Amino acid sequence: MFTIGRVVLLAAFATASLNALADDVVRYKIPDSTFPISAAVEVPAGKATIYVSGNVPPVVDPKAPKDSVAAYGDTKTQTIGVLTAIDKQLKSMHLSLSNVVKMQVFLVGNESHGGHMDFAGFMAGYTQFFGTKEQPNLPARSAFQVAALGNPGYRVEIEVIAVRP
Amino acid sequence: MFTIGRVVLLAAFATASLNALADDVVRYKIPDSTFPISAAVEVPAGKATIYVSGNVPPVVDPKAPKDSVAAYGDTKTQTIGVLTAIDKQLKSMHLSLSNVVKMQVFLVGNESHGGHMDFAGFMAGYTQFFGTKEQPNLPARSAFQVAALGNPGYRVEIEVIAVRP
Amino acid sequence: MFTIGRVVLLAAFATASLNALADDVVRYKIPDSTFPISAAVEVPAGKATIYVSGNVPPVVDPKAPKDSVAAYGDTKTQTIGVLTAIDKQLKSMHLSLSNVVKMQVFLVGNESHGGHMDFAGFMAGYTQFFGTKEQPNLPARSAFQVAALGNPGYRVEIEVIAVRP
Repeated sequence: MFTIGRVVLLAAFATASLNALADDVVRYKIPDSTFPISAAVEVPAGKATIYVSGNVPPVVDPKAPKDSVAAYGDTKTQTIGVLTAIDKQLKSMHLSLSNVVKMQVFLVGNESHGGHMDFAGFMAGYTQFFGTKEQPNLPARSAFQVAALGNPGYRVEIEVIAVRP
Repeated sequence: MFTIGRVVLLAAFATASLNALADDVVRYKIPDSTFPISAAVEVPAGKATIYVSGNVPPVVDPKAPKDSVAAYGDTKTQTIGVLTAIDKQLKSMHLSLSNVVKMQVFLVGNESHGGHMDFAGFMAGYTQFFGTKEQPNLPARSAFQVAALGNPGYRVEIEVIAVRP
Repeated sequence: MFTIGRVVLLAAFATASLNALADDVVRYKIPDSTFPISAAVEVPAGKATIYVSGNVPPVVDPKAPKDSVAAYGDTKTQTIGVLTAIDKQLKSMHLSLSNVVKMQVFLVGNESHGGHMDFAGFMAGYTQFFGTKEQPNLPARSAFQVAALGNPGYRVEIEVIAVRP
């Protein structure tokens, strides 16, 4: 009886383990690269999908004109502001940035960078939230420079898709 | 017996109610804002997802050159044309704009607006279809100005993701 | 008995057929058009979703400066390189381009095309992979011209969503 019970128990554990594997989000690494995004992310069936609207940066200098870069800060500052806002939104839904599976980043060119987007500044902000010891989960991602965002002072807008674990 | 039966009945109702909640698309409001998009939209597991291709505006003036803004109208006119086309596509699949959970809007700058996108014109068209008494369901959304679309006369292209209820 | 058995058998076939339909990805054609994308693609519940990061073109001329178009080739060449890379990524996950349900294409303007994106060049590459006899499955798609991508030599970046059959 005891032996049978143990076998049943082991079988139950094995099933639970297989289910855990089958139920988990899989994040595929980029081969031979340390770039902090996933090459692809696979979301198994049976998960709720959360589409988050594009988030724009908060005002960091209330005295600056509302349509100036000064009001929102440089690209790194804006990126930190945007990801903090997305984190807050996700936390209000009992999720976090660790549940993000997909990201799109819209950057705007900077006069201070000859009209080019400040990609390094964006990455300096992004890497404070993704690929850290505390939050190692990396999303699939696309990033590109658009012509403009909703306010002339915005340099970055980010939208994400998350899944409920 | 009667009492037990009532308890069972109540339990059955409670379960049905919880299931209904668990099965519904949840649209999270933007706090302290009346801006007519959702901060986020959660799609529960078990729904079919419909990806709709980017839709471009129809010709409204067949006499105008096919590569002119005049052929397709201003941004508001084009937005109404695009959303009408998406509505028609969804209806052919027994869905409607009320099932849209995610939207991306690609706008092109206007000479008449100093090269900027006509965001107000887009919103004037959008709000005829979303956030009305008849169709209150608001999608998660991103909107930005791109460098160009497939035709020099296009000022707006829209793609959506919908779910089957 | 034989007749009843045949009816039961037919009923079983009918059920299997309906199940097959219900379980399959449905690709809706654009009415009266041969343009090689789907108007919409419906993914039934119960499929794993794979988000693939935006892929950029490989170097085709190692002697050219790393920030030049010459290093990556023209838009057609770059498109072939990008889709080959996505195909390789999908194959490493036991999937293929036939499982792609959604695509976004980010194109950059060409000096050789008066600053416009080379849409025809992109399509010349795309149609080698989609809408062929061997691979007829067409994704829902949006394509637009962005201001810039991560390298001044890039003319195309592509991201896809695939589903596991």
